[in-house]
Amino acid sequence: MTELQNPALLMIDFQRDFCEAGGYAFHHGGIDWVQPVLPKATKLLEVARTARIPIVHTREGYAPNLADCHPMKLARSRIGACEIGSMGPLGRLLIRGEPGHDFVNQLQPRNGEIVIDKSSYSAFHETALLEVLSDLGISELLVAGVTADVCVHSTLRSATEHGFFCHYIADAISTFDPDIRRACEKMVEVEGGVWGRLTTVAEISSLLLTLPS
Amino acid sequence: MTELQNPALLMIDFQRDFCEAGGYAFHHGGIDWVQPVLPKATKLLEVARTARIPIVHTREGYAPNLADCHPMKLARSRIGACEIGSMGPLGRLLIRGEPGHDFVNQLQPRNGEIVIDKSSYSAFHETALLEVLSDLGISELLVAGVTADVCVHSTLRSATEHGFFCHYIADAISTFDPDIRRACEKMVEVEGGVWGRLTTVAEISSLLLTLPS
Amino acid sequence: MTELQNPALLMIDFQRDFCEAGGYAFHHGGIDWVQPVLPKATKLLEVARTARIPIVHTREGYAPNLADCHPMKLARSRIGACEIGSMGPLGRLLIRGEPGHDFVNQLQPRNGEIVIDKSSYSAFHETALLEVLSDLGISELLVAGVTADVCVHSTLRSATEHGFFCHYIADAISTFDPDIRRACEKMVEVEGGVWGRLTTVAEISSLLLTLPS
Amino acid sequence: MTELQNPALLMIDFQRDFCEAGGYAFHHGGIDWVQPVLPKATKLLEVARTARIPIVHTREGYAPNLADCHPMKLARSRIGACEIGSMGPLGRLLIRGEPGHDFVNQLQPRNGEIVIDKSSYSAFHETALLEVLSDLGISELLVAGVTADVCVHSTLRSATEHGFFCHYIADAISTFDPDIRRACEKMVEVEGGVWGRLTTVAEISSLLLTLPS
Repeated sequence: MTELQNPALLMIDFQRDFCEAGGYAFHHGGIDWVQPVLPKATKLLEVARTARIPIVHTREGYAPNLADCHPMKLARSRIGACEIGSMGPLGRLLIRGEPGHDFVNQLQPRNGEIVIDKSSYSAFHETALLEVLSDLGISELLVAGVTADVCVHSTLRSATEHGFFCHYIADAISTFDPDIRRACEKMVEVEGGVWGRLTTVAEISSLLLTLPS
Repeated sequence: MTELQNPALLMIDFQRDFCEAGGYAFHHGGIDWVQPVLPKATKLLEVARTARIPIVHTREGYAPNLADCHPMKLARSRIGACEIGSMGPLGRLLIRGEPGHDFVNQLQPRNGEIVIDKSSYSAFHETALLEVLSDLGISELLVAGVTADVCVHSTLRSATEHGFFCHYIADAISTFDPDIRRACEKMVEVEGGVWGRLTTVAEISSLLLTLPS
Repeated sequence: MTELQNPALLMIDFQRDFCEAGGYAFHHGGIDWVQPVLPKATKLLEVARTARIPIVHTREGYAPNLADCHPMKLARSRIGACEIGSMGPLGRLLIRGEPGHDFVNQLQPRNGEIVIDKSSYSAFHETALLEVLSDLGISELLVAGVTADVCVHSTLRSATEHGFFCHYIADAISTFDPDIRRACEKMVEVEGGVWGRLTTVAEISSLLLTLPS
Repeated sequence: MTELQNPALLMIDFQRDFCEAGGYAFHHGGIDWVQPVLPKATKLLEVARTARIPIVHTREGYAPNLADCHPMKLARSRIGACEIGSMGPLGRLLIRGEPGHDFVNQLQPRNGEIVIDKSSYSAFHETALLEVLSDLGISELLVAGVTADVCVHSTLRSATEHGFFCHYIADAISTFDPDIRRACEKMVEVEGGVWGRLTTVAEISSLLLTLPS
């Protein structure tokens, strides 16, 4: 059986803008796909806290003046009917400091947990994440979050390039299109496990609860 | 109709190790999937040369002593039955300087074209590619190569993070598993075209041949 | 005479912690060295606003739980008698959100100006600065800030590696030790101007005021 | 007394182009400054081999078509009377594959040692150096090389940002101007040792020879 070596939990973009009515994802294509993931992610976070492993929460967002949002990205969001910076019931979409940019209530960080703000898809792109994980001596990442094909897969790829082994916790990861969600899972284990291994909240929980403390 | 703005052609890993009998891919899962792509890629390269746009060829490979090959990556290749550095009919698999590491005959770079060596999946990871493209004033990338889900998609994602608009030339890109190949294509245009747009060699050729010179 | 090409003003770390009594620098070695620089920097900022060029303000700081402060860096600050995170009259030294972490009054950013937070010396290290400057089409940086040998020179070096031409505005840059300050200036123009060129607030002002609008 | 923790030796740019008559440095300002450093560096390399620590050699160089040489850098070298790519008695200056680009005879890498090619000043900029050192579990770098103010100090700064502790081996590091050489040394230990500590070949040798094997 697999044993975890110096793991950290990586919770990717569990923000109101991706998970709640009125936010960015809601405008683009609804939020039905994310609903079943939230209780799983909540369970995972509880177990990681019990196991006292390092916990990192990432958050996508842009400056109010959009200085760090590439014009091309802005144009794409307009085409997707969820223009970054436009006003909605949770505030301006994906803008740092707005209510929609914050984490959902059940997945709020606690004191001592790490928050990484990013104006990118990969949580390693132009952030201190690599340094933070290196300083903590982390070797493996337990990955959960949204969306599977964009921020999760980009982060997974960067993590692997930097030498972290990733556990892709499939029932705590989702995206709009179920075909793409399944393909994201299938891709993980090709070529001898190029992006790590597939797992579930239940399996990771049982591995975490048997970690030596 | 789309017009190309300061494009460069990016030919990803058209090496003997990925395309010919006896190489890395051959050991892992055969090379049938890549055969139909090679004549398309050859046509594309010819047109790009005629249009006189910058051409970049990338090449994955590792030092003979494997100093730049992560132990985890080495282990994965062993599981995949194509251990990096092991001996085959084209020399040591994926080692710089071996016959298998070289480009296939029909896609050899010419004088004045750019070669980027990488010991990574993304061609932007720890290489001078970003600088080279910036120096040339490139805005858009015409992307072809192998494999779709690993080196092509990782490069596509990095390129987009850095602000390049990507044209994903679907008939000049492939991978082992046809389901994953199709998913890689479908992913490109979600969320307003998050990783660019899908196109074909024929369409790009016609756009290139109408570029103002 | 030099003409500026697509310039931006880069104001490095003009924070209360580096410039005011009771802050980080004050604990380490006093703040006499920075006093003459502040009126010069204020004048420079005014002129850049009049010339309507992009303005970037950077800020060094760490998370309250120090997750992004390398243990080695923390140890160094302890040796330097200015331990990061320890309490002082301006709040915890170099911690984001504390009064000492904020910009000095006379150099506060205005709406539309860009703020880059960093937990590093170089303002390009693990921040969105490169993307922001690329998006704006910037080619040249007008550099002012503190301290000359640490954050300014590290930023200058990164900027040059990324292809920006830097104007080192010597009377708006300083550091604790006057010998080191002078050496930082001398280094700029060796080997044909390896890190750009030396200039003054007066010269840059006159160049800015003749920019075509 | 200091003890070394997981050290590697980093030999920066001991190439004929920086050390021999007829090369890049020779055209720019002569090579007298580097002569006394070479026997020291040779001694250091011998001791590191005896101590069996990892050894990394870096090498600055550009593609024959100059694709990875920024036009601004090229212009600076022209002003400095040592134009990159121009022909000299050791071949084209700083071009990969030319005789001048190679390491000097007495400091040639042996089998099993690591060579990092770079088209940058910092050996971490767009190279695999960070990955290589991480894979080897390195914590500290023993730094020697040329030139003190350009490639050595830029590498030193990047190394520190990435969390490596650096030993600056002053008698195995030099540059054209003795004032700048001294300032480079003085800068290392400001602010509690911001870029590491100053040492000598003799001291490092004695530390290396007492390493547990």
